[in-house]
Amino acid sequence: MNKSFSDKLIEKIKAKGNPICVGLDPRLDKIPAFIKRKAAYEAKDNPFTAAAEAIIGFNKAIIDEVCDLVPVVKPQIAFYEIYGHEGVRAYEETLKYAKKKGLITIADAKRNDIGSTAEAYAKAFLGEVTIFEGEENEIITPIFDADAITVNGYLGVDGIKPFIEEAKKYDKGLFVLVKTSNKSSCDLQDVPLADGMSVYEFMGHLVESWGADDISDCGYNFVGAVVGATFPQQAAKLRKIMLNTIFLVPGYGAQGGTAEDVKPCFNKDGLGAIVNSSREIIFAYEKMPEFGEAQFAKASRKACENMIKDLSIIFK
Amino acid sequence: MNKSFSDKLIEKIKAKGNPICVGLDPRLDKIPAFIKRKAAYEAKDNPFTAAAEAIIGFNKAIIDEVCDLVPVVKPQIAFYEIYGHEGVRAYEETLKYAKKKGLITIADAKRNDIGSTAEAYAKAFLGEVTIFEGEENEIITPIFDADAITVNGYLGVDGIKPFIEEAKKYDKGLFVLVKTSNKSSCDLQDVPLADGMSVYEFMGHLVESWGADDISDCGYNFVGAVVGATFPQQAAKLRKIMLNTIFLVPGYGAQGGTAEDVKPCFNKDGLGAIVNSSREIIFAYEKMPEFGEAQFAKASRKACENMIKDLSIIFK
Repeated sequence: MNKSFSDKLIEKIKAKGNPICVGLDPRLDKIPAFIKRKAAYEAKDNPFTAAAEAIIGFNKAIIDEVCDLVPVVKPQIAFYEIYGHEGVRAYEETLKYAKKKGLITIADAKRNDIGSTAEAYAKAFLGEVTIFEGEENEIITPIFDADAITVNGYLGVDGIKPFIEEAKKYDKGLFVLVKTSNKSSCDLQDVPLADGMSVYEFMGHLVESWGADDISDCGYNFVGAVVGATFPQQAAKLRKIMLNTIFLVPGYGAQGGTAEDVKPCFNKDGLGAIVNSSREIIFAYEKMPEFGEAQFAKASRKACENMIKDLSIIFK
Repeated sequence: MNKSFSDKLIEKIKAKGNPICVGLDPRLDKIPAFIKRKAAYEAKDNPFTAAAEAIIGFNKAIIDEVCDLVPVVKPQIAFYEIYGHEGVRAYEETLKYAKKKGLITIADAKRNDIGSTAEAYAKAFLGEVTIFEGEENEIITPIFDADAITVNGYLGVDGIKPFIEEAKKYDKGLFVLVKTSNKSSCDLQDVPLADGMSVYEFMGHLVESWGADDISDCGYNFVGAVVGATFPQQAAKLRKIMLNTIFLVPGYGAQGGTAEDVKPCFNKDGLGAIVNSSREIIFAYEKMPEFGEAQFAKASRKACENMIKDLSIIFK
């Protein structure tokens, strides 16, 4: 039998000795000039291809430096879609390369739709797709082939089920938005319900119920939750509601969350959450003159090492 | 001064004499064999390119047939992303072709994220993006260049603001999910709040407030709402809350909504909503043997004409 997503994830976290997820959210204006020059030269006249190649080159260098240190990477697809289909090609290449280097990959896409449409997303990101080759022959192939995807649960369970089904079939996972890290997440998520809960707690209960039947050996299931580092009190409440749910925790670092802030996202065993940092790791070179542009990936490695130290109060 | 999105939309609806949006949600297994054969032949060995070309060929034929009849098309990006970056290229081509044919385009993408990430989506779908050409030269170019995008408001206003800003800058629009057409939209959206409203009504108030400052000559603003045809009672409530908001109404046709059901989505002037139909129009040939595969686009035209007749109880 194949290992479940949660078993693979927890195993990888234990092997690396930290719960860090590196957010691969490239921005062309922050990619070192020498990488962009090389990409532009190779792409000749196509600026979109040049952008895609610059992103691929940047990401691969960072993946090479951090793949022995951390268990997970999470490329945010908005920063690829912004360059259209060539950007999406860079997204595919990034996921493929990270997988090849032994990292667990989370497609941060926050996809959501009604059932029949969610099924198309689920197949694209987690499963396999039927296409045709030549005149009549069908082929079945993965497309993005991420290990997990982030999704938005506003549409209720029938928009989530297709992701659960593909996840089950291919030993993948999903992370449903529960309490997001941004300031105005309170606009809707903190609104009190008639029964005394807040919207985010209600969503927490929903997510917990969606994964309840699939708890694997490690004690967790493959239906995770996104819980921001910027709201430690709310995270503590959710941790109690969702004992067997893995939290994907954004908001550490650039968004203001500290190691103390992410503590409530973990269970007492030091497990149950992965903590994401994007900008502070991938653009670390900007704040580390000892490395500079030329050694930007080494700076990212150093930033990972610093984060591992910082989080050691939780995960020893 | 340029016309606002809502003025352009209302004008187009009046000119065509109907509020119909054709959902361009292709499925490879439903695209006529002769189109797929041609695409496969032209794409030679690449099945992804073949899939993309088949979709482009299928969509263009339908756009050609319906562009004089209806005001709006709405390609759902999941059905393109399922073929990876080549599918996304087909998405770009579809939007471009529909625009060229004078149609208003809505990118049905339901994107959502924290502010800095939502900004990347907003620029990609509605605005312009800076990329580089050659060694140092920057170029600024639109990417998807849709007239409007669907978004999910679970993250609150700071995830919506970037879309509003790009929409303002480029005379575009957005449609925020309020009450979706799927059965389990009740899971979260119908939950009662402490103050007596339901979650969907609360979201309706939020959306109404986000657009309140930007009502244009036609009486509507560019921050629209997605309100499913399958819940007429809830739609009636929302219509009262959101007088100046344009509703994008999915769920008519294949999902079960009738002309009577969509009636409450409209204001008394017969305006204020656009009604989407996807499968029943684009795959109409399956149910119209008088056309058959060879004339699939003519069948789509016929299905549009039928829908125009059906909706004439609202829009005369």
